Amino acid sequence: MLQPYLERYRRDLFSSVIPFWLKYSLDREYGGYFTCLDRDGTVYDTKKYIWLQGRQVWMFSRLYNEVERRQEYLDAAQLGVDFLRRYARDPQGRVYFSLTREGQPFFYQRKPYAAVFMMQGLLEWAQASGDEDCRREAVELFWRIREWIADPTLMGRPVLPGQPPLSNLSNVMVLASMAIELAQVDDDPRYRHVMAEALAGVQRHYDARRRILVENVALDGRDLSAWPEGRLFLPGHSIEVAWFVLHLLRFLPDAALQQLALDVIEGSLELGWDQEYGGLYYFMDLAGKPPLQLEASMKLWWPHTEAIYALVLAYTLTHEERWLRWLERVDRYAYAHFADPEYGEWFGYCDRRGHLTHTCKGGNYKGCFHVPRALLFSIQRMEEALR
Amino acid sequence: MLQPYLERYRRDLFSSVIPFWLKYSLDREYGGYFTCLDRDGTVYDTKKYIWLQGRQVWMFSRLYNEVERRQEYLDAAQLGVDFLRRYARDPQGRVYFSLTREGQPFFYQRKPYAAVFMMQGLLEWAQASGDEDCRREAVELFWRIREWIADPTLMGRPVLPGQPPLSNLSNVMVLASMAIELAQVDDDPRYRHVMAEALAGVQRHYDARRRILVENVALDGRDLSAWPEGRLFLPGHSIEVAWFVLHLLRFLPDAALQQLALDVIEGSLELGWDQEYGGLYYFMDLAGKPPLQLEASMKLWWPHTEAIYALVLAYTLTHEERWLRWLERVDRYAYAHFADPEYGEWFGYCDRRGHLTHTCKGGNYKGCFHVPRALLFSIQRMEEALR
Repeated sequence: MLQPYLERYRRDLFSSVIPFWLKYSLDREYGGYFTCLDRDGTVYDTKKYIWLQGRQVWMFSRLYNEVERRQEYLDAAQLGVDFLRRYARDPQGRVYFSLTREGQPFFYQRKPYAAVFMMQGLLEWAQASGDEDCRREAVELFWRIREWIADPTLMGRPVLPGQPPLSNLSNVMVLASMAIELAQVDDDPRYRHVMAEALAGVQRHYDARRRILVENVALDGRDLSAWPEGRLFLPGHSIEVAWFVLHLLRFLPDAALQQLALDVIEGSLELGWDQEYGGLYYFMDLAGKPPLQLEASMKLWWPHTEAIYALVLAYTLTHEERWLRWLERVDRYAYAHFADPEYGEWFGYCDRRGHLTHTCKGGNYKGCFHVPRALLFSIQRMEEALR
Repeated sequence: MLQPYLERYRRDLFSSVIPFWLKYSLDREYGGYFTCLDRDGTVYDTKKYIWLQGRQVWMFSRLYNEVERRQEYLDAAQLGVDFLRRYARDPQGRVYFSLTREGQPFFYQRKPYAAVFMMQGLLEWAQASGDEDCRREAVELFWRIREWIADPTLMGRPVLPGQPPLSNLSNVMVLASMAIELAQVDDDPRYRHVMAEALAGVQRHYDARRRILVENVALDGRDLSAWPEGRLFLPGHSIEVAWFVLHLLRFLPDAALQQLALDVIEGSLELGWDQEYGGLYYFMDLAGKPPLQLEASMKLWWPHTEAIYALVLAYTLTHEERWLRWLERVDRYAYAHFADPEYGEWFGYCDRRGHLTHTCKGGNYKGCFHVPRALLFSIQRMEEALR
């Protein structure tokens, strides 16, 4: 059943997606990556977005570490890691959101995510290169990110009395994803502890009736249903976290949590899938109220890439037919709407009805990450299952 | 030619729009206004958004000051002004972005706009109520906003070396709009100076070839065309600023600037109108590159309300037919897509093709402002012209 997917994903990853980024994104003059690339690879913004610098370093290092020891992958990763280490952090060690092409700081966001993706890039690069300094920097950054998430005032974000103490699914997710990466390369027992914390965090977001993960929950048990924040559901996030949980369980096996993660994949697809026009919604309000986000009903590429990998994982774990039926549906939507065999990589943005709204292949939030990661992980998982 | 518009706008304003806000938005328990109202007026977020508190105070005070001395208008304005003065400012006198229903601070944005709309509400309320304290607070806030715009670090926004010194059309616009309001009630010559500055600022944004105002220009003359920020055009902003200029010119007459403003109205409509599906785009890239904003091609209510009033103003100033042809076109699009005679007020958001994406009448950025202001100003202007 998987063979046709495997062949197609290999072709897409190695003949379309990776060549696109190798050809158009490398800034050999100033270092780092252009990510704002139009359909044909033309650069439409020369700024360097740190989320995407870190993610691309991670991606090329991972290809080098797990697919093939090609110098081209290593060189591409090094171009980003050198740029990041030289320019991405402010004098207090915090991480900027964006830089000019040359590396001058352009914007600082009061959020931890730029640091998270930088940390993951550094760590994977350290594995590829054996650079111990870089590995230490990744670990140091990881512990600082934990502090920043615990106390956002350290990032310059005031904690105001009207904000209840919230758990935010993004923060649970990034702690989980960083801990997985660290645990793979270091047996420091503290990472197991972080993974256990992340699993406990995920459970806090579980809505058992709907079998989904909700985006925000109050840590003091306060009812948030009068606010859109308390009713917010991102199908793509919920599915992505579910597969992170399945990865975490390799280190900390737990049958009940495996069932929860599988339930979340199915529940999120059932609730998040647009019955009328197909595709996964970006933002949803669980009470059916209008979401505050203008782009809520748009169809983005990444919830679909995350669903594809989650379904490959769910099927290879359980061998249940229902996952294949969903895989077929999500894969068909994604390849009909986002893939661009003509110029390579995927488009990113459609309106609710599936009409492309942007011609770009990359931007300030789309880079060399979700498509190649989902394809690589799906390929690796299918190869393992077919062996 | 104007009579049918005048009658319809009066009916819409006084039988649909204002009744909607009076009926559903007043929080008589905690003060202030609910603005997140679904199609039928149901509250879907109880938080209080300061932009919209200030704007609604302004609107009801203006109705009281210029339309009819109805106690209902005065009471509605007071409900907002008391809430704002009690809760909206932080210990340093800066203005929060949002509060909980009860008035506790929820979010602080590193931008001056919450303060701008609060200031305008306070000032118009002071005219309605004769409250001298409130008037002094408005004036004090105005001078602080000037400082904040000149030095964003005072709002907690770092100035980073990669950011060129920019003039942002929003800032030019809010300084102009505040100065107009102040000059109407106070003959302090400093306000004339601010108006002259604003007019000079607007000219800096003029793209003579396209006859539009661009969103960002570098103050040091640096070329910004490699960045989306430097190629950004908001048809609605450009048109709104053009009619602000026409208002400013009542105080500082200048025939060349009047021509520029009229050119901007026409140029912005010509470039900003979607030739295929109708309506004004939200964000555009002047080089035809993909905009970074996901909602760029959506059709929002407010560019259309601003165009309607700008066209009424342009026609009554010049009596040229071309403005009537545009008015007919914009008015037809707006009433076909946004107005909701069944429940009152207007919807706010359609996708590029004109399909409604959100059922709400208000949200965190849409309140009792653009629709009633454009209708009131158009009515007043048409009444004056027809006299």
